[in-house]
Amino acid sequence: MENLIANPRLSFDAPEFFGDGISVKQMRLPNANTPFKATYFEILPGFETPVDRHKVEECWIVLQGSGILNCDGNKLAISVEDVLHFYSFNGHSVINNGSEPLLICSIYW
Amino acid sequence: MENLIANPRLSFDAPEFFGDGISVKQMRLPNANTPFKATYFEILPGFETPVDRHKVEECWIVLQGSGILNCDGNKLAISVEDVLHFYSFNGHSVINNGSEPLLICSIYW
Repeated sequence: MENLIANPRLSFDAPEFFGDGISVKQMRLPNANTPFKATYFEILPGFETPVDRHKVEECWIVLQGSGILNCDGNKLAISVEDVLHFYSFNGHSVINNGSEPLLICSIYW
Repeated sequence: MENLIANPRLSFDAPEFFGDGISVKQMRLPNANTPFKATYFEILPGFETPVDRHKVEECWIVLQGSGILNCDGNKLAISVEDVLHFYSFNGHSVINNGSEPLLICSIYW
C-alpha cells in the first residue's frame, strides 16, 4: 500500500470572532476518525474569555503569551509551554493580563 | 456529582535523551482513557532526529524555534504555530537549522 502523504502541514478554518478581543479557528484534522478535535484561539491583551463548561474533556497548550486561568474558582498563572487539562464540566476561563496576544491550542474529546 | 478538579496544570515525566541534542518528555495525561498520548520533544540547534515511522498517526505542534521537516522525502520549513500531521507509516524526521532550541508537542493515537 502506498503511504498517504500529500502536504503534512495542517490548515485551519477562517477565524471566528467570539466576542471582543477573542478569535477561534478550527484545526482541519485530516481523518474523520481522529479521536479528538482541536482549535487555536487567541485573546488580545486585556480581554477575558467567557466561562466555558461542557461534557467533553479538554487540554490547553499555551503557544504564546501569558494569562490567568480560572478553573472552578482556582486561579493559576499560565504561560508558554504550559499544558492544562479540564475534566468534564470544569468551568474554565482565561484573562490575558500580559502585553502580547495569548495564543492557546485547545484539544478536546 | 462533585466536579473533579485538583490542579489543572499537567506535568511531564523526566526528560529522556534520544541521542545527541535530542530529549523527549512524556505528558502525564490524567485519565487512562484519554484517546491519545503526548510528548514534548526538544532538538538543539544543528541536531536532527532519526527517521521515525510507525502505525500510530501523529500530529506535531511547533512551540518554539524552527527547522526543516522531512516527511517521506518531502522537505518543508516549519516554525512556531505550525501543525503537521503524519499518516501511519509516513517516515518523518526534523533538523533544527535555527539558532534556538526547536520545541515540538507530539500527539499520537
